[in-house]
Amino acid sequence: MNIKKRVWEIVEVAKPGDTVSRAFDIFILAFIIVNVISVIIGSVNQIYDRWGRVLDLFEFVSVVIFTAEYLARLWACTVDPRFSGSVRGRIRFALRPMSIIDLLAILPFYLPFWNVDLRSMRVLRLLRILRIAKAGRYFTSLGLIKDVLYTNKEELILTTAMMGLLLVLSSSILYYCENEAQPEAFASIPHTMWWAIATLTTVGYGDVAPVTGIGRTFASIIAVIGIGMFALPAGILGAGFVEAIQRRKKREDAAQKKEEDEGRGNYCPHCGKRLR
Amino acid sequence: MNIKKRVWEIVEVAKPGDTVSRAFDIFILAFIIVNVISVIIGSVNQIYDRWGRVLDLFEFVSVVIFTAEYLARLWACTVDPRFSGSVRGRIRFALRPMSIIDLLAILPFYLPFWNVDLRSMRVLRLLRILRIAKAGRYFTSLGLIKDVLYTNKEELILTTAMMGLLLVLSSSILYYCENEAQPEAFASIPHTMWWAIATLTTVGYGDVAPVTGIGRTFASIIAVIGIGMFALPAGILGAGFVEAIQRRKKREDAAQKKEEDEGRGNYCPHCGKRLR
Amino acid sequence: MNIKKRVWEIVEVAKPGDTVSRAFDIFILAFIIVNVISVIIGSVNQIYDRWGRVLDLFEFVSVVIFTAEYLARLWACTVDPRFSGSVRGRIRFALRPMSIIDLLAILPFYLPFWNVDLRSMRVLRLLRILRIAKAGRYFTSLGLIKDVLYTNKEELILTTAMMGLLLVLSSSILYYCENEAQPEAFASIPHTMWWAIATLTTVGYGDVAPVTGIGRTFASIIAVIGIGMFALPAGILGAGFVEAIQRRKKREDAAQKKEEDEGRGNYCPHCGKRLR
Amino acid sequence: MNIKKRVWEIVEVAKPGDTVSRAFDIFILAFIIVNVISVIIGSVNQIYDRWGRVLDLFEFVSVVIFTAEYLARLWACTVDPRFSGSVRGRIRFALRPMSIIDLLAILPFYLPFWNVDLRSMRVLRLLRILRIAKAGRYFTSLGLIKDVLYTNKEELILTTAMMGLLLVLSSSILYYCENEAQPEAFASIPHTMWWAIATLTTVGYGDVAPVTGIGRTFASIIAVIGIGMFALPAGILGAGFVEAIQRRKKREDAAQKKEEDEGRGNYCPHCGKRLR
Repeated sequence: MNIKKRVWEIVEVAKPGDTVSRAFDIFILAFIIVNVISVIIGSVNQIYDRWGRVLDLFEFVSVVIFTAEYLARLWACTVDPRFSGSVRGRIRFALRPMSIIDLLAILPFYLPFWNVDLRSMRVLRLLRILRIAKAGRYFTSLGLIKDVLYTNKEELILTTAMMGLLLVLSSSILYYCENEAQPEAFASIPHTMWWAIATLTTVGYGDVAPVTGIGRTFASIIAVIGIGMFALPAGILGAGFVEAIQRRKKREDAAQKKEEDEGRGNYCPHCGKRLR
Repeated sequence: MNIKKRVWEIVEVAKPGDTVSRAFDIFILAFIIVNVISVIIGSVNQIYDRWGRVLDLFEFVSVVIFTAEYLARLWACTVDPRFSGSVRGRIRFALRPMSIIDLLAILPFYLPFWNVDLRSMRVLRLLRILRIAKAGRYFTSLGLIKDVLYTNKEELILTTAMMGLLLVLSSSILYYCENEAQPEAFASIPHTMWWAIATLTTVGYGDVAPVTGIGRTFASIIAVIGIGMFALPAGILGAGFVEAIQRRKKREDAAQKKEEDEGRGNYCPHCGKRLR
Repeated sequence: MNIKKRVWEIVEVAKPGDTVSRAFDIFILAFIIVNVISVIIGSVNQIYDRWGRVLDLFEFVSVVIFTAEYLARLWACTVDPRFSGSVRGRIRFALRPMSIIDLLAILPFYLPFWNVDLRSMRVLRLLRILRIAKAGRYFTSLGLIKDVLYTNKEELILTTAMMGLLLVLSSSILYYCENEAQPEAFASIPHTMWWAIATLTTVGYGDVAPVTGIGRTFASIIAVIGIGMFALPAGILGAGFVEAIQRRKKREDAAQKKEEDEGRGNYCPHCGKRLR
Repeated sequence: MNIKKRVWEIVEVAKPGDTVSRAFDIFILAFIIVNVISVIIGSVNQIYDRWGRVLDLFEFVSVVIFTAEYLARLWACTVDPRFSGSVRGRIRFALRPMSIIDLLAILPFYLPFWNVDLRSMRVLRLLRILRIAKAGRYFTSLGLIKDVLYTNKEELILTTAMMGLLLVLSSSILYYCENEAQPEAFASIPHTMWWAIATLTTVGYGDVAPVTGIGRTFASIIAVIGIGMFALPAGILGAGFVEAIQRRKKREDAAQKKEEDEGRGNYCPHCGKRLR
């Protein structure tokens, strides 16, 4: 039981002062980064042709380590009151988003053993990049940014919804304008959405662009509205940051003032007695 | 009369607690969304070739439902004091923007019966996407965003006007610079406006771009001014949101303070003299 | 002298209540807009081929009217104390930026009479679009925007300077990276600047883009810095608008408070005598 | 010793009132600008073919002057207490970033004498553009911008890190989606990053763009997230500027208020009791 508890402390994010747990965190984080780099460079054919064996070996070692980590978590989790109960607790633990990510990050390696079609292997290798999500566990302090996004979530969702509406409308209009002139690029409304996204986000690849006069006129109006739509989230987030910073400062000022008050006292200037 | 009143309550946006009216609102909203999706996927030839009959049947059902909804509104509207009078009131109701949208959303289906040229049918089908605007009735709380846009409307209109001026000037300049080198893409000032819009909004499709030295020099200056122009509405909206949030907070603070004052009074608790 | 004064009042921007002067302002403004539209549509060959005579006639009428306006201003300006002196005052008036614009807007019509090379006529016609600048006289209330731009001019100039520095540096780097692979598009540092502007402003036409690995790596870094550079003016202007709005509101609050003070009085709460 | 001190005062940024030192600063700054222009226009073949000798001579003169400046600094630096000690002090001075830039700006000229491969000369000439960095010494007052960037460095680094994460994820996804359809443009994850950068920064050259349905769907989501990511630094910087301006103003207000308090006192002018 004592060992179990220690294992749990080590695999979880380290508490201040726990050097061993902290070393383990840093090791896993570094290992994740090396894994991601390995997936990235492994996708270059020339590199894979020469170093494929090394990369495959590293992949094997990685899966062993990540599997051991996953099993250690699954074994030790019952120490935590949230996951008490040797079966039910472990199931509850295994269904946490973070645990599912941990599992998905090692699964692609084991599936071939159960007779999975080799064609789908390529897609399965994609899941390896999910190991980058394992790093999320250690990003505990997005602080201000998370705070601002959360406080303004209503406005941001609304802006996204308005962008969705604009996307549907502008795709429909341009489809009807351009379909005859460019039957391939503007083959249907969903096809036209590719153009609409490129325009509303101002990316503008230029692989698809209207050529008719009426199409270009509507596209111009949509592009101008697009930059306005873009200015909205920038404005909302800007105001959100201003507010969050001021709120934080007010809290600090209040704390400081309270301290001062207790030191100097806050007395009625006429009768000299303490106020509040 | 009682039935008429109930019908009016149901077709209008539900008041809190009116479950039947609320259920009707949700049904219509969901129906609108399914209709928009049907228009979108119906524009894909492969899907229409296979499922055309289903989509056409759904279109028929939709028109029946939306027509019934429209007639119910038109019949019951006289209950509302704003539309009293069985003829005049109904005309006034039918001329509201929302009623016109409701009518336009069903009209394309009925027009063919009155011998409309089949060639223009395509354009008429475009109007079906307007059903998305019917959803606007249920978006009653754009709140903050509407507030900010309204308060800063003067500056936003001015910015748009400045962009219009810049559009005319930059199109004229580039037309004179590039017309000889690219007589087709820069055929006239209105043609050049397509390039100018793509540049000022930073979309930059790249289907039209200056090639002469002098044209590129002016285009560079215009592009830099363009991102400045873009920074203006972002700045205005940002400031607008800051102000709106602070105004709202001040109102809340004032309400809270007033409550406190009335409860505790704001006197020195010892000598009883008023403070401040 | 009395007629001169009245002419001056009429040609200048109207004072409140002066209906005749106001009517004149509106007429000239409308006339400028029609002129600009005429220049724009006159650049379309099909339109010019058919309506050329009408447009040329309109151009003739315009020049007559604008010349009369210019001469009226020049004749009447001596009424204004700033331009007193029938020769010196008129020269001082003629050298004002607005007067020079007025002159440039009619000059292209008169130059051909003095044996100007017909080849340069095309360029001269460009000057006609300058008539749009005449409208500037009537935009007296850019208010808030001008205020913000003026207050933050130092930061905005600095940002522009930093962008210039970044432009030179990134053009030099990409020139050395890409010159061998694309000797035409990246022929020299000034040529590469066209690519750099398109990237830093995020317009990205795509007519010129790096193809080498090292070129793309640097281009990526430059593009990311570019959007940061862009965020700076947006941030500065945003803060500027926040400040300007708060300053304005403070002034209004102060004015209101002063009024209240005078009404209710602002007395010492202890001895009851007036304060300040 | 006196001459050494004077030389040091002259080569360093001028103190107010030191006219000679100020003239030296302006001369060096102007000389740097002319040097940068010379490097830029020297890269144009037609100009170099005609004026190559003049540019080479100017380059020779520049190196002589910059070398003299460097040696003067190195000789005189021991006057400054930070660099006391004729050997150690000079080494410490030579290792300052600004001194290294000074050295790098003249080195390319001297290296050929020590038998450097002529092929790499091209790259060495790139270093000449670094002379632009010498100008940094005279930009002492970036003030507000530096202040804002410094205060918000944590959030800005975090945003950059999130952008890096998004870059890796989106490149991996698009690589797996598009690799089969476009084996050259999406040859590997590092190759796909070029597309991802162009999309996330909304530059969108269009030389590489997804063509498959699934690829375009993911690309659309990534583009929308990209403009959100962009709105974050704009928001952070906007809030930062608001805060910095208010902090500065508060300091000024406090200074002014203190002055007023000390001058007039803040007492009731009738009963003499202190007010707040």
